[in-house]
Amino acid sequence: MPVSELLLDRSRCSVAGTLAVVGEKWSLLVLREAFLGVRRFADFQRILGAPRAVLTDRLATLVDQGILRRVPYQAEGERQRHEYRLTTKGIDLYPTLVALMEWGDRYLAPEGEVPMELRHRNCGAPVHLTLTCEDGHTLRGAREVTPVPR
Amino acid sequence: MPVSELLLDRSRCSVAGTLAVVGEKWSLLVLREAFLGVRRFADFQRILGAPRAVLTDRLATLVDQGILRRVPYQAEGERQRHEYRLTTKGIDLYPTLVALMEWGDRYLAPEGEVPMELRHRNCGAPVHLTLTCEDGHTLRGAREVTPVPR
Repeated sequence: MPVSELLLDRSRCSVAGTLAVVGEKWSLLVLREAFLGVRRFADFQRILGAPRAVLTDRLATLVDQGILRRVPYQAEGERQRHEYRLTTKGIDLYPTLVALMEWGDRYLAPEGEVPMELRHRNCGAPVHLTLTCEDGHTLRGAREVTPVPR
Repeated sequence: MPVSELLLDRSRCSVAGTLAVVGEKWSLLVLREAFLGVRRFADFQRILGAPRAVLTDRLATLVDQGILRRVPYQAEGERQRHEYRLTTKGIDLYPTLVALMEWGDRYLAPEGEVPMELRHRNCGAPVHLTLTCEDGHTLRGAREVTPVPR
């Protein structure tokens, strides 16, 4: 029996908690589009091809959770509508999306054919997620990490 | 209309691809336990409280996907059984789990009460996911990243 089983309270697990909030497929795809600059219902719907009712529900949930916020706008001669913009809480989901993307690029994309690259805005170099410790070391992976129950 | 809409082929998206493989709740919770050292069916079942049929299905899928591998073992006087161990492809999902955990720790855990800390095995310092570029810069977040369609 793994030692961790005795020490960890799974009911408070932050992985499960985050999954409960944003783990649904359409929610994460809405967030992907939001990070790519999409803000309007009609654009989300056209790009994602999500059923209207599902998209309405997922956007409302993401707003309720404080991950997106609704901002009114009014185009010339049209009625007032709302845009959906990422909050700080939403922007902080970026590493989750990058992690999913990097794994998909490595294991699902045909050799060398990744759909999109992330680059550092300032210097143009490719961006990656890395595990680092507060002493400044870069870790190569899970094997160099010890989980410590609190 | 966001510029990205015109340039990106969503059908090849690696976020959606990874979600299709491991986005299901029980699959990710099985992986969480695997990273905590759980290997045996009975242990997964007791810790997760997953229905037996669901757990059987998720383990089989993760094996089919090459994320877990089945390794035979035989306890004294019992019939041969199988353990489930992470492959390299599975271990590479670690950043995804850490990203979900870090967001949950920040936004879902009661103040200062994170369930678990990750520490660098060598030096003991707390471990975090960071966005870094190949030129060695540490990025503060999504706003410093430019997505480039390929």
